[in-house]
Amino acid sequence: MACGRLGGVRKIHVIGIGAGDPDQLTLQAVRALKDTDVFFLLDKGEVKSDLTRLRRDMLDTHIPDGGYRLVEARDPERDRAAGGGAYSPAVGDWRTARADIYERLIREELGAEQTGAFLVWGDPSLYDSTLAILEEVLARGAVRFAYDVVPGISSVSALAARHRTGLNRVARPVQITTGRRLAEGLPDGVDDVVVMLDAHQAFRRYANQDIDIYWGAYLGTPDEILVSGPIAEAGPRIERLRAEARERKGWIMDTYLLRRHREVPKEG
Amino acid sequence: MACGRLGGVRKIHVIGIGAGDPDQLTLQAVRALKDTDVFFLLDKGEVKSDLTRLRRDMLDTHIPDGGYRLVEARDPERDRAAGGGAYSPAVGDWRTARADIYERLIREELGAEQTGAFLVWGDPSLYDSTLAILEEVLARGAVRFAYDVVPGISSVSALAARHRTGLNRVARPVQITTGRRLAEGLPDGVDDVVVMLDAHQAFRRYANQDIDIYWGAYLGTPDEILVSGPIAEAGPRIERLRAEARERKGWIMDTYLLRRHREVPKEG
Ligand SMILES: C[S@@+](CC[C@H](N)C(=O)[O-])C[C@H]1O[C@@H](n2cnc3c(N)ncnc32)[C@H](O)[C@@H]1O
Ligand SMILES: C[S@@+](CC[C@H](N)C(=O)[O-])C[C@H]1O[C@@H](n2cnc3c(N)ncnc32)[C@H](O)[C@@H]1O
Repeated sequence: MACGRLGGVRKIHVIGIGAGDPDQLTLQAVRALKDTDVFFLLDKGEVKSDLTRLRRDMLDTHIPDGGYRLVEARDPERDRAAGGGAYSPAVGDWRTARADIYERLIREELGAEQTGAFLVWGDPSLYDSTLAILEEVLARGAVRFAYDVVPGISSVSALAARHRTGLNRVARPVQITTGRRLAEGLPDGVDDVVVMLDAHQAFRRYANQDIDIYWGAYLGTPDEILVSGPIAEAGPRIERLRAEARERKGWIMDTYLLRRHREVPKEG
Repeated sequence: MACGRLGGVRKIHVIGIGAGDPDQLTLQAVRALKDTDVFFLLDKGEVKSDLTRLRRDMLDTHIPDGGYRLVEARDPERDRAAGGGAYSPAVGDWRTARADIYERLIREELGAEQTGAFLVWGDPSLYDSTLAILEEVLARGAVRFAYDVVPGISSVSALAARHRTGLNRVARPVQITTGRRLAEGLPDGVDDVVVMLDAHQAFRRYANQDIDIYWGAYLGTPDEILVSGPIAEAGPRIERLRAEARERKGWIMDTYLLRRHREVPKEG
């Protein structure tokens, strides 16, 4: 999994760091941290500074003697106002703006033969744009680098583990989707649905159906909250706890599994 | 995440150990290994003895001084012949047979106040029955224990990392399903589909569609094979490599992401 040792080519690790619990780092991730000369920390603004602190603590724990450089930059927030939501028509511009920043960081802050790293929340393969942005930077051709990806524990795996449940039922599929999509309807042909990026508690719409919810906020952190049960019962409790926590901390990250029950042919 | 320290109650860790690379163990998993008195290793038969060896090697690496006990048992294979496939009508019996074994292991091999562990391939939340079986054992009421779950890197995350791709596209869903389901048709409303447990290369049916495949076998192990491209081109290559590898090793574990392209409204 090491990047090729090409002469003069910069190397980059995209490291999944788990979804909140610093012990969710894999041994491979720890190794990649130790192998890194320059860490790029992109901050989405002070409300989530807890998350920035968590990443700094990881570095202090695993590379106590330093020997690396930290480069911080502001990650431009998507223009939520413009499009009325997380995925506005401004997504294209936003991606260009991010590619500009990543390109500059790599070109100006990473020496030839050096190794840089981006620390990605959860697993880099789920609802994260780091890989797409690096590909865009490479496609522009202004800076060359090799990169590899270290998988991480996603908030989806963390959610299932804390609720001690599987994501799928025997021989059946599971879908991972967004709050925005769920607000448009339950997906067809699948009864187990994990919802991420839901700012509006889209599950409320389904309180009249025979669906269980397994909800988790701040998973893996000291603030973790877990609630499960039929939506009709657990839903109002989740809404209350979510509002309180969000008020108290200034931000929230939550995700949930919906499990729909219906008459299915008996197995066995 | 620790089990309650109830007097005289047995404790069990269900530990996700990653999908093949021993460095995919998390720090939390390593901690749980060290905390365990008795490991239950369930063997599915000699063809997969590589996998049993990998688990033993992990124990040797992380608990070099021993101090634990290994209990091996034969995990009954599902009766594939009966139902003509991985999910035959015999699933119910099979689950009962496994619950019998787990119950016996816990009752006879784990002392009160001791901690046992089941090492689960990948992440315990995906296509794994350990949690369901433990729940069944608890429901029977013949033996009491507390248990917790340590999430692991699933083969899905490993696949995406090795291909350096996301699972979902921006703001869109991803579905995880089985080869058997895929053989019945592509799921509705989702263009990114991860397929597990496919013994029949169900992707072949879709070679005439504009779909890319990202395939990986023995992910994370020295035998790893990766192929990607449009199904029409990559498919025949995958079939050949898969048949060769399966012949050579006597078993194969592979998974893939299908990414369907269609006209979508441009963003940005
Ligand atoms: C931009 S996505 C990134 C997901 C990340 N790559 C992963 O693998 O978990 C952010 C969403 O992930 C979920 N999430 C991430 N960390 C979480 C945590 N610790 N607790 C609950 N949800 C979390 C929330 O649904 C949040 O809206
Ligand atoms: C019974 S399921 C268990 C999945 C496991 N819990 C996980 O999280 O990956 C077994 C299936 O997982 C996939 N799989 C597991 N390990 C794999 C590996 N190292 N390489 C490729 N596929 C793998 C294959 O699709 C296989 O049929």
